[in-house]
Amino acid sequence: MHLGKLSLGLLALTSLSVFAEFKPLPDRAPVPADNPQTPAKIELGKMLYHDPRLSMDGTVSCNSCHNVMSHGGDGRPVGVGIHGQRGGRGSPTVWNAAFHSVQFWDGRAASLEEQAIGPLVNSVEMGLTSHDLVIERIRQIPGYVAAFKKVFPKDKIPTIANAGKAIASYERTLITPNSPFDRYLRGQKKALSAQQVRGMKLVQEIGCTSCHDGVNLAGDDLKMGEGNYKPFPQIPGSKYDKMYDITSDLGRYEVTKKDDDKNHWRVPTWRNVAITAPYFHNGKVKTLDEAVRVMAKTQLDMDLKEDQVSDIVAFLNALTGEFPKQTMPMLPMTTNMTVTPDP
Amino acid sequence: MHLGKLSLGLLALTSLSVFAEFKPLPDRAPVPADNPQTPAKIELGKMLYHDPRLSMDGTVSCNSCHNVMSHGGDGRPVGVGIHGQRGGRGSPTVWNAAFHSVQFWDGRAASLEEQAIGPLVNSVEMGLTSHDLVIERIRQIPGYVAAFKKVFPKDKIPTIANAGKAIASYERTLITPNSPFDRYLRGQKKALSAQQVRGMKLVQEIGCTSCHDGVNLAGDDLKMGEGNYKPFPQIPGSKYDKMYDITSDLGRYEVTKKDDDKNHWRVPTWRNVAITAPYFHNGKVKTLDEAVRVMAKTQLDMDLKEDQVSDIVAFLNALTGEFPKQTMPMLPMTTNMTVTPDP
Repeated sequence: MHLGKLSLGLLALTSLSVFAEFKPLPDRAPVPADNPQTPAKIELGKMLYHDPRLSMDGTVSCNSCHNVMSHGGDGRPVGVGIHGQRGGRGSPTVWNAAFHSVQFWDGRAASLEEQAIGPLVNSVEMGLTSHDLVIERIRQIPGYVAAFKKVFPKDKIPTIANAGKAIASYERTLITPNSPFDRYLRGQKKALSAQQVRGMKLVQEIGCTSCHDGVNLAGDDLKMGEGNYKPFPQIPGSKYDKMYDITSDLGRYEVTKKDDDKNHWRVPTWRNVAITAPYFHNGKVKTLDEAVRVMAKTQLDMDLKEDQVSDIVAFLNALTGEFPKQTMPMLPMTTNMTVTPDP
Repeated sequence: MHLGKLSLGLLALTSLSVFAEFKPLPDRAPVPADNPQTPAKIELGKMLYHDPRLSMDGTVSCNSCHNVMSHGGDGRPVGVGIHGQRGGRGSPTVWNAAFHSVQFWDGRAASLEEQAIGPLVNSVEMGLTSHDLVIERIRQIPGYVAAFKKVFPKDKIPTIANAGKAIASYERTLITPNSPFDRYLRGQKKALSAQQVRGMKLVQEIGCTSCHDGVNLAGDDLKMGEGNYKPFPQIPGSKYDKMYDITSDLGRYEVTKKDDDKNHWRVPTWRNVAITAPYFHNGKVKTLDEAVRVMAKTQLDMDLKEDQVSDIVAFLNALTGEFPKQTMPMLPMTTNMTVTPDP
């Protein structure tokens, strides 16, 4: 299954329209019919997203690992949860996650709504022991009770599903449009340097974009299902497998237990990739240029020349978008007590 | 040294002017001559304050323990630093800290500038091994280098002293004016309920305000020196000493090693005290009403009646101010690399 080489052949046939598969990032993310965006819901989601009381000891919020004052990740190899526990995988950026067709490195959540409530009850992340406990805590905070009632008037009390809906609504506002690449696609030919244009053509010619396609350059036009997942490494046996411990985490297989899913992963976005080091599911690769070398070898069986690496890195730098200004939420407080007991 | 009872006597002589010692919180904090406020400096300070890269493993920022989206503390008994390490004392609220004459529970920093750079190199807090390492990290981030240059044009490169100045400048904007108490003092007599007024009079009559005076209700008009510190317990031997482990931390003594400083502390602010549970230097007291009982007994040798406790708690609830709306800072990023290496 050398899709890369297959694409190379196809692209050679259509060299006059090499940009056809690229699309600029929309200003708005797709919104599911059962969770329409409202300003009050987005604001509630923002509060929940930034609230460390949604972790067992009150030290970790969604934002701890997916920092929206920055690249949307944590700049670390793997996430760190309560009690200093290290997770098994890197924290994917939350920016533009709304454009992914499935969530998590292994795609085990079909939506932002489903993803958002997972880490709350993961013992090495936020560590609450059940969703009931999440809600028990939220119900002790009068400002949340009032906000849930306002946003979800049909439900008398806060529910975990509604918490997920609110957080997802906030996350759908976390979009970084107008990267140099997007401006180029919209006709501003000077938005990219000559080197960046070379890099852009190269990633198409050698086949990177057979997986990194769609508005998020993450295979995000694929529908939920097997088609979303790609093997990494595609071609096992290179020196990188051992050097960066690529194969020990079986990825999608850990969810499905199907042999065909071993070492398969959701394709990560290229958007803002230049500022989201370190790289890959285990964060073992520290720099973007090395990540490019590794991918060319493990996925396309290519040893890139250094000027090719530089061109591709230059292009990937053109995928850093504009980050919207945000106001800080003010978290609803409790009087005379705290909801985060000492362990 | 029963200052409380002494004050009670004095107040009886001046009962017509019981409010004389109360002052509303100003809109602006005092600014030292050698660190004038500028918008660019405040913005730089805000970025540094919220940047977890100023901790060894990139997981803890100033805001982790002094959360400005909330009560300015962490709602926990004691702070939690890198690797899940627990500190020895509770995190004092950063709101209105600019009005304190000295900083930290034991007053070991004479200014916000000095305080701000302490936790960066505390092994159980942010854990960087030296201020040189802080600066080495900042210098790897081009956006910081440019911002320091703009804000501190006389210095060619970022310095730790300037980092402290910038963070202090930001903290001087963290003020919560216009509490019901402040509005009452300014003439809005309906801003306080009858019960709150009873509580306000009671704390003066029984002597609480002999220590909790000044605009911050924290003895903050006292100048740097011995006079800032008060014994807790003032009257040792009550059941609370053991119940809440009040005496094992020697407080100011740990800084000076003078016997007279044993169990002496900077007076904590009453402002926003209703929302900053749990209480005292070790966070052992979970509720405000219990904190009131403990203080009356340990400082004034009084067993309050429950209606007196309720009145005082009602008054303390009137000290919750208005929190300013803030924009989120966008942290300057690095391309192709991360500055927080895996330990």
